Amino acid sequence: MGMMTFSVEAHSASPAKTVAKARGFEMIIDEPEELGGSNEGPNPVEFMLGSLAGCLNVVCHLIAGEMNFELRGVKISLEGQLNPERLFGSCMDERAGYQNISVRITPDTDADEETLKTWLKAVEGRCPVSDNVCNPTPVVLELG
Amino acid sequence: MGMMTFSVEAHSASPAKTVAKARGFEMIIDEPEELGGSNEGPNPVEFMLGSLAGCLNVVCHLIAGEMNFELRGVKISLEGQLNPERLFGSCMDERAGYQNISVRITPDTDADEETLKTWLKAVEGRCPVSDNVCNPTPVVLELG
Repeated sequence: MGMMTFSVEAHSASPAKTVAKARGFEMIIDEPEELGGSNEGPNPVEFMLGSLAGCLNVVCHLIAGEMNFELRGVKISLEGQLNPERLFGSCMDERAGYQNISVRITPDTDADEETLKTWLKAVEGRCPVSDNVCNPTPVVLELG
Repeated sequence: MGMMTFSVEAHSASPAKTVAKARGFEMIIDEPEELGGSNEGPNPVEFMLGSLAGCLNVVCHLIAGEMNFELRGVKISLEGQLNPERLFGSCMDERAGYQNISVRITPDTDADEETLKTWLKAVEGRCPVSDNVCNPTPVVLELG
């Protein structure tokens, strides 16, 4: 298939609210009022967990198909912890982003435990967003 | 402020479509038809770029405020390249996720070039989502 390019065009609707467009779709990202926003959408770090959930769902079903077991659906619970001090500039000792992310996947299936462990390992190794979160990815920021 | 926890609950509406909830908000993530979805929303890797845009917007404004220059708004263009072969299981030689992400930030401001370079460097160092993309973050997947 070769390399695929994905792109998003975004602009600030306010200092905390962003309108981001991908193809015909619009994403509204905002902060809750206690973080300085107008609470019109999930915030950026919640969007990141949403991105991870969406990617895991696709890969869960893809690999279940390859492994020939019936997967009727998945529930995915995601949680991340971060210390906002670096973001707010009050302390630069800790990292800015999530320090850890935990994900619980509950598959609706009759597959046995052993099969599901093998499946989960394969999902982990082939999920694009998991890869970008777990491993370093170069981000080049430039002024335009 | 201490550590903050963010969480998302998601479920598969189909093998390619995910409904993810963060507080009262719903994110609809899907794949385009050519990637096996019903094209009802941005796909997971587009969501990831949206997340990055939203976070950069917040940090751009926060740091402009600290640096005392007027920032009337920002436009942010994001692009990432990935090779889908690992996702589809046809080749495990390359990583699954974005191999690189480029971001162009166009600020609406009268600040001079030197100020903006300092600003961009600070934005890069304090943006939570940039941190999670650029640097490794432990993701623990478990069966529930």
